[in-house]
Amino acid sequence: MTATSWVEGADPGPYGLAHLPYGVFSTSKDPTPRIGVRIGDRVLDLRALATGTFFLPWIRPAFHDGSLNAFLAMGPPAWRLVRHQLTEVLSDPRHRDRIATLLTPADKARMHLPFRVADYVDFYASEHHATNLGRLFRPDAEPLLPNWKHLPVGYHGRAGTVVPSGTPVIRPRGQRKTPDGPVEFGPSARLDIEAEVGFVVGVGTDLGTPVGPDDFAEHVFGAVLVNDWSARDLQAWEYVPLGPFLGKSFATSVGHWVTPLDALAAARTAAPVQDPAPLGYLQEADRFAYDLSLSVRWNGTEVARPPFAGMYWTPAQMLAHLTVNGASLRTGDLYASGTVSGPEPGQRGSFLELTWGGREPVTVGDGESRAFLEDGDTVTIAATAPGPDGEVVGLGEVTGTILPALD
Amino acid sequence: MTATSWVEGADPGPYGLAHLPYGVFSTSKDPTPRIGVRIGDRVLDLRALATGTFFLPWIRPAFHDGSLNAFLAMGPPAWRLVRHQLTEVLSDPRHRDRIATLLTPADKARMHLPFRVADYVDFYASEHHATNLGRLFRPDAEPLLPNWKHLPVGYHGRAGTVVPSGTPVIRPRGQRKTPDGPVEFGPSARLDIEAEVGFVVGVGTDLGTPVGPDDFAEHVFGAVLVNDWSARDLQAWEYVPLGPFLGKSFATSVGHWVTPLDALAAARTAAPVQDPAPLGYLQEADRFAYDLSLSVRWNGTEVARPPFAGMYWTPAQMLAHLTVNGASLRTGDLYASGTVSGPEPGQRGSFLELTWGGREPVTVGDGESRAFLEDGDTVTIAATAPGPDGEVVGLGEVTGTILPALD
Repeated sequence: MTATSWVEGADPGPYGLAHLPYGVFSTSKDPTPRIGVRIGDRVLDLRALATGTFFLPWIRPAFHDGSLNAFLAMGPPAWRLVRHQLTEVLSDPRHRDRIATLLTPADKARMHLPFRVADYVDFYASEHHATNLGRLFRPDAEPLLPNWKHLPVGYHGRAGTVVPSGTPVIRPRGQRKTPDGPVEFGPSARLDIEAEVGFVVGVGTDLGTPVGPDDFAEHVFGAVLVNDWSARDLQAWEYVPLGPFLGKSFATSVGHWVTPLDALAAARTAAPVQDPAPLGYLQEADRFAYDLSLSVRWNGTEVARPPFAGMYWTPAQMLAHLTVNGASLRTGDLYASGTVSGPEPGQRGSFLELTWGGREPVTVGDGESRAFLEDGDTVTIAATAPGPDGEVVGLGEVTGTILPALD
Repeated sequence: MTATSWVEGADPGPYGLAHLPYGVFSTSKDPTPRIGVRIGDRVLDLRALATGTFFLPWIRPAFHDGSLNAFLAMGPPAWRLVRHQLTEVLSDPRHRDRIATLLTPADKARMHLPFRVADYVDFYASEHHATNLGRLFRPDAEPLLPNWKHLPVGYHGRAGTVVPSGTPVIRPRGQRKTPDGPVEFGPSARLDIEAEVGFVVGVGTDLGTPVGPDDFAEHVFGAVLVNDWSARDLQAWEYVPLGPFLGKSFATSVGHWVTPLDALAAARTAAPVQDPAPLGYLQEADRFAYDLSLSVRWNGTEVARPPFAGMYWTPAQMLAHLTVNGASLRTGDLYASGTVSGPEPGQRGSFLELTWGGREPVTVGDGESRAFLEDGDTVTIAATAPGPDGEVVGLGEVTGTILPALD
């Protein structure tokens, strides 16, 4: 039987004892951002906990920082130790009196970006997404490009515009051109989302040190939901030959809570068989996927349920590819999966796919018809994963509302 | 007549009184990285200068940091004030006794990365370079793609692998595929350089705040030479459709000395006329280029002299484009011009162009024939600019030697 928490209402629930994700919060009483762990509808203040003798002396300084980075950099021994101690104090009622005073209601916590983002890389790892985009953009050609099954295609995004969930997204302006029209400037008319899962690097590497796929958990701390907002009209005009740039760089939203990989142990499942077999550096001794079920809500209406388990390239393969050329990792590096789309129409993680290039609008909210995002629209991405013994782990949602473009 | 420095041999010279570039150095006696300004063959320790009452109190803390970032963030008033004071103490011999004790021979200074790189963006702003690459890669088509004359094409590179000049470059390994061959893994066989000029952002912006081209000097502190090492075989196989990734992310070298824009005032010159006229947000009231003459030496042999003044897109236009979608800037953002190539064969800033895809080898060093970089090769990029009254400003060189790939 699973242990449960003495925090009322925490178990069963998305933020039960089996989850314990980390974030950075402040309160109106104490506006200094500090690290907290989520339990039920409460946030446990780890800075306050670390002022006493609770954590080991070498770990305590990590919780006097306004971001997760110092803790992430400490690596798996610290991650495991802290998780073990938190599990103990949040399950054993003898700790209740002392710990309860360090809890803040989650709805009173102002949440910040959980970690300082070093580099941000975005992959393109869903075969269904890549195939859909190929069909939409190159209807007369093979939908998958020749390199797609040989390597996880990816590129660098803008780290400085990664924002925490809830940050409003100002509709970007820029250049676009339809095949027969003039070059124009204006607010994006094809504003879209990409529902993704991001992975947060804790332990960095030196330049020239590739990380093999089986060393994934030695470097990656955890997962966070990502919405890679995309201006499709800007992107279509700019992206040849150097890839997406302004069509993406205006904002990328991440969830408030970073879920440790340890909380996803029960969510490990078989990953798709790869044909052709990839090159050696991408072959995993222990190949697995994470069985996360995403949900995309558009003005409150669930429009898609993309399944993460079916991604062709695993997070471990993405990391191995990212570093095989010797590129170093830094604490706070974020790499995201690319749009999570499944084989079914109801499993598409971008509106470009969902509305098939805007030609098949969907109905959302109070009966509004939508092809792309309108000003005032809100999109929320959530995900659940199987926890131990039938529990369900619910990842921190990522949400954002579109504001009109600037004049 | 230009003022000169009392530092022996400084004027005339690349690091004369008209230049005063900033860097970060340490010494064997004091291994803490600190900010210095280069004058002749000496480095003036600004941390030491700031311990007294020399700079204004609000400026002093900037020089107690191990990178330029805090100083960069202070903006043009601080930049001008410090430059003015340094010019004074380095020209007026009455300061010699006090200041001379704070000088370190440049050859005894260990140089570090001058600033913490926030985001790194690479453009593609030379018409000759883009045309050459078009001819090489798509011989039967128009060499320039349709978007090229409408916007400065660019993409994000990896900030975490920007390294200071002199850092050895380990030959990257990765995937490649020739049109008719199999997918292979191995050390890059087409390792190349890109001689570029980079611009360093001092004053950041809030999300949603475009920077117009005429506000360039309110945000950009200065210029630095860049070698954007490129593995052409890796790049050719991976780059469709999301752009260059591992073919670039293994290393990008920057010079040790950041040249303030104020030192390049005399180097302002007319920029090429643009046809068609760009959209309004890219139109400059005061359009200008910087007249930098680059020099590329391969194992000691000068193989190219790329002229920066001829770049189709100016640094101010690059900044305006980068931010027009509302993307914020951070102190330490670095954006580079892309390969600087002129119209003549001897003005090509990449070996891919210089040896025309490897088909026309060049002779370097002690009579070695080269198409691409061999292990042990050294490439050094330098540049000069006109200073006031016939002086010459010499930018800090960027150099690197190729080490063999890891086993």
